[in-house]
Amino acid sequence: MQLGMIGLGRMGGNIVRRLLRNGHTAVVFDQNPEAVAALAAEGAVGASSLEELVAKLDAPRAAWVMLPAGEITETTVEALAGLMSADDIVIDGGNSFYKDDIRRAATLREKGLHYVDVGTSGGVWGLERGYCMMVGGDTPAIERIDPILASLAPGLGSVPRTPGREGRDPRAEQGYIHAGPSGAGHFVKMVHNGIEYGLMQAYAEGFDILKHANAPELPEGQRFDLNIGDIAEVWRRGSVVSSWLLDLTAQALAGNEQLDGFSGFVADSGEGRWTLNAAIEESVPANVLSAALYARFRSREHASFSDKLLSAMRKGFGGHQEPK
Amino acid sequence: MQLGMIGLGRMGGNIVRRLLRNGHTAVVFDQNPEAVAALAAEGAVGASSLEELVAKLDAPRAAWVMLPAGEITETTVEALAGLMSADDIVIDGGNSFYKDDIRRAATLREKGLHYVDVGTSGGVWGLERGYCMMVGGDTPAIERIDPILASLAPGLGSVPRTPGREGRDPRAEQGYIHAGPSGAGHFVKMVHNGIEYGLMQAYAEGFDILKHANAPELPEGQRFDLNIGDIAEVWRRGSVVSSWLLDLTAQALAGNEQLDGFSGFVADSGEGRWTLNAAIEESVPANVLSAALYARFRSREHASFSDKLLSAMRKGFGGHQEPK
Amino acid sequence: MQLGMIGLGRMGGNIVRRLLRNGHTAVVFDQNPEAVAALAAEGAVGASSLEELVAKLDAPRAAWVMLPAGEITETTVEALAGLMSADDIVIDGGNSFYKDDIRRAATLREKGLHYVDVGTSGGVWGLERGYCMMVGGDTPAIERIDPILASLAPGLGSVPRTPGREGRDPRAEQGYIHAGPSGAGHFVKMVHNGIEYGLMQAYAEGFDILKHANAPELPEGQRFDLNIGDIAEVWRRGSVVSSWLLDLTAQALAGNEQLDGFSGFVADSGEGRWTLNAAIEESVPANVLSAALYARFRSREHASFSDKLLSAMRKGFGGHQEPK
Amino acid sequence: MQLGMIGLGRMGGNIVRRLLRNGHTAVVFDQNPEAVAALAAEGAVGASSLEELVAKLDAPRAAWVMLPAGEITETTVEALAGLMSADDIVIDGGNSFYKDDIRRAATLREKGLHYVDVGTSGGVWGLERGYCMMVGGDTPAIERIDPILASLAPGLGSVPRTPGREGRDPRAEQGYIHAGPSGAGHFVKMVHNGIEYGLMQAYAEGFDILKHANAPELPEGQRFDLNIGDIAEVWRRGSVVSSWLLDLTAQALAGNEQLDGFSGFVADSGEGRWTLNAAIEESVPANVLSAALYARFRSREHASFSDKLLSAMRKGFGGHQEPK
Repeated sequence: MQLGMIGLGRMGGNIVRRLLRNGHTAVVFDQNPEAVAALAAEGAVGASSLEELVAKLDAPRAAWVMLPAGEITETTVEALAGLMSADDIVIDGGNSFYKDDIRRAATLREKGLHYVDVGTSGGVWGLERGYCMMVGGDTPAIERIDPILASLAPGLGSVPRTPGREGRDPRAEQGYIHAGPSGAGHFVKMVHNGIEYGLMQAYAEGFDILKHANAPELPEGQRFDLNIGDIAEVWRRGSVVSSWLLDLTAQALAGNEQLDGFSGFVADSGEGRWTLNAAIEESVPANVLSAALYARFRSREHASFSDKLLSAMRKGFGGHQEPK
Repeated sequence: MQLGMIGLGRMGGNIVRRLLRNGHTAVVFDQNPEAVAALAAEGAVGASSLEELVAKLDAPRAAWVMLPAGEITETTVEALAGLMSADDIVIDGGNSFYKDDIRRAATLREKGLHYVDVGTSGGVWGLERGYCMMVGGDTPAIERIDPILASLAPGLGSVPRTPGREGRDPRAEQGYIHAGPSGAGHFVKMVHNGIEYGLMQAYAEGFDILKHANAPELPEGQRFDLNIGDIAEVWRRGSVVSSWLLDLTAQALAGNEQLDGFSGFVADSGEGRWTLNAAIEESVPANVLSAALYARFRSREHASFSDKLLSAMRKGFGGHQEPK
Repeated sequence: MQLGMIGLGRMGGNIVRRLLRNGHTAVVFDQNPEAVAALAAEGAVGASSLEELVAKLDAPRAAWVMLPAGEITETTVEALAGLMSADDIVIDGGNSFYKDDIRRAATLREKGLHYVDVGTSGGVWGLERGYCMMVGGDTPAIERIDPILASLAPGLGSVPRTPGREGRDPRAEQGYIHAGPSGAGHFVKMVHNGIEYGLMQAYAEGFDILKHANAPELPEGQRFDLNIGDIAEVWRRGSVVSSWLLDLTAQALAGNEQLDGFSGFVADSGEGRWTLNAAIEESVPANVLSAALYARFRSREHASFSDKLLSAMRKGFGGHQEPK
Repeated sequence: MQLGMIGLGRMGGNIVRRLLRNGHTAVVFDQNPEAVAALAAEGAVGASSLEELVAKLDAPRAAWVMLPAGEITETTVEALAGLMSADDIVIDGGNSFYKDDIRRAATLREKGLHYVDVGTSGGVWGLERGYCMMVGGDTPAIERIDPILASLAPGLGSVPRTPGREGRDPRAEQGYIHAGPSGAGHFVKMVHNGIEYGLMQAYAEGFDILKHANAPELPEGQRFDLNIGDIAEVWRRGSVVSSWLLDLTAQALAGNEQLDGFSGFVADSGEGRWTLNAAIEESVPANVLSAALYARFRSREHASFSDKLLSAMRKGFGGHQEPK
């Protein structure tokens, strides 16, 4: 089927490519004309404005916005909605905050438009492996874009089927779900990323402990010089901690066991924060997911005020002068 | 080659089976004669005592102790060492504390014996999929038992090879490593389990947040009834949180989405505790791994003293009476 | 001076009493006429409606709303503002969310009214000891109500003066501050309560460790039966962990060392949650304050879904059956 | 009464001074002869060796070792025990690990000696305010040194008495307790310090949130420039977070609100680690106390390996390049 795509960055561009490879057609727009030209050369129909994109789509239309969450997605969805007609579908495939989805869906519904939020995981690997998608919105709209979702999803692939799923929604094992009404897709994707932070931090702490197994403060005869690249590799086979993130860890360590070149500064993209806000709103304890996010916050500071205050208290009580 | 096996529980028994299937021979002993008989019926040579087991092994011997960590492993290793001769190999494949390994290895070295500690991951799946093994000890001993290790390990299997590992120790991608001197195997396995706890807790918290997405305290119009079985399934394909533990989660939820029948009580097997002790000894921050262990501790209490004390303070200061 | 008080619960009633004792006058209103009558009997002027309260106040008026944060405070402030005249002052002394203050202050400013938010700490002890107050709003309004604040505050009392504060705002050591514009008072009070949760949890965990010092799982000869009531008492003198919360702990344990009668259920009043939301918004790591809040969440659950999921994974991988 | 003191650092020296002021006599030794001379000038009897110290004490002797925990305390206690006679008392007033106390007490008991462990809190303030002491050992020994303990303790002072303590051990409200057999004193002191870490970190996180209330990433109109020195001061009166640590915080901020001159590096003295080890051994969840210790570990690192690994995973999955 035909899809409009607004935003041709790494994610948007590859989604279009995967669709083209699967026999779909796409009308594409990006603020950067070169990105449009590149995809046009690969078979997409280019558009030089939102207006042109909408004009080139056949009604009822479906247009996918793939932009950074926040201001730019907000204004683009708004502008797009202004150009679309009743029964058209606006898809937000970015990492929007689910409460924004709920609000936008209500606004678009008043105009007779459908709003579909798609939480999309796949990173730089999605073009080849397919995208895992968590979709929110009303059923008719999601059924209409099912051919798109089915083509973008990884499919069964080589992953063994889960016993006991007979009779359940078959889309899940193809790699996409209709999670619920508008906002549900991004809600699930948000928690997905919250979990991702937790998993990453669990590995990070564990490898940190392995790395420091030869710390000079350890008793003599109880220190180990471990080859952590080999350890990451061995856990990939037969071990219960095997995972895609471990595969990536093994790759990183195979290339550079000291991880030279990384500054230690770790960004976060918002979903980890929203996941904690949701946990707090729901009264669900989330120590691990919180600690994972805070480790990233902490990675961006040197000599934090918090630490200085500890030193000030120590000096005040015990006369302690910190060693350096 | 020939191996002696002491301890024919789920792990020990299956290890012998996997060896027999790969053309090795085994002399086996267990305190339970039925377990010995069962394996004898499958081709192993039964022994009715440690003495008989040692007598039936050809020198230089290799005997694998597969018992619960602690007292019983300690006394068995000691007794076995007393029966073995110079250059024989004692293997501890259980989950011993690595400082016990270091101590035992030194004791056995005085008698001319080799002590090899093997951290073994594989659970109930090891017989079919193979065991991931982290091995500590001296090189000659580990080279001598290499045929055993190679047969027990999963091998390359269908797991894609890690780019950039050319020229590195090929055993890691077969599923076993020589981690270092005695104790190093169990040290790595200990951290492996520490990470496992962290990963499990990250999933548990995330699914808990999804499960409570319809909590009555949430604002109306912002609640979702999520199908968490489908969510676990969809993340298995194309998502960065895919892992073996997620596969197991999807299986559990496919059968019983409410997880009825689980009491909420979660045991721990010691390695998580030791991992934290190691982190503390190394001065490595480990908030996630700690929180994962503490969640298990907390799962075993109802109305903890800690919580009561909070209530007592609240009453003292604010006159608050807890609601129930 | 004269103050209107809306809300005569424990906090509001005692604030009026403390003002009367200090020579101020008060017009008071509460939905419960008995509460009004009680305070009228103590010297306040009773009012049977908001309208009557406003009518009985001399312009320019100052009226203090002391109600539970949320809906009731919101509608009362709105109604009150509708009745007040230019240059009057509306004070919210409850535990409102600071972003609500910012919004309300802007609305009231359009009508020429002043909005002052007062974060008030003092609990059931405030009547005798005075209230610690963190005040937000514009300077003229706060200067106008200074006599009220000065009377409510504890004053220097027996607390030793802090060396080095010469030349600084003298109100701080009297027990109240002008923290900043509207919202700043409740922001500071919010963090105050966040810290309170952290302090309480630090004591709770520590006393829990002391309480379990005779746990059967500890090695023989390394267990202690500790008198934790005496421990709380001894730390009150000369120890760096002495504090008001410790005083309250010592009192609670003096009466009932087992804390029988407390269910273990621990409520939270919102500020702890908002403090974490603020930390997340500011990218400030807050592991301790988070853990303190989560401990309260956890105290309200038995057999959490999170814990059950851990058990389900353990069973799936290792065939483990939880002990109970 | 007469006491021997070994170790005349800040703590040991002031303990002797406080005893002299209270009419006791002391024989003192330190590896540094100047420290001995200084105290001799203040009225103590100097000794130039352990032997001389023992010789100058009247039997049955009581000698207090006040040295850094670890090697030096171990060897000094051993040497001292070798010089003492049956029924003499060896006191370890430092911060020894309680399992070392248990071991030492057993050894000394074989020689007929008493071993008393005294956990001592008071910092640089103890000379004036008195020391809070948690004492472990056998009753006859502790009764014998009671005059010493009573003089060192703060006494009732101006701290209000706890209602409900009538009939309980009166020593607790004087500022010292007999906590239990050998080791119990240092066990209680250990947990005391663990709590101290938690309290300090709760304040540190809270003030960090206040400090960042004007962070540029916050929405415009929702930022505050807070005077955190005034905030610390105001909480000292009438607020439930008042404490000695808050007093020290207020002092530090009065002098230097930016805390310039502190590097951010925060040391730890061991008890926080042991407290966690005890919690783990007892299966008591201790998220707050753990997070407090880990914050100190983290303060000593820049660009931790753990953080680099997170960046490496992010790059592997999403192609993310960290911003700096």
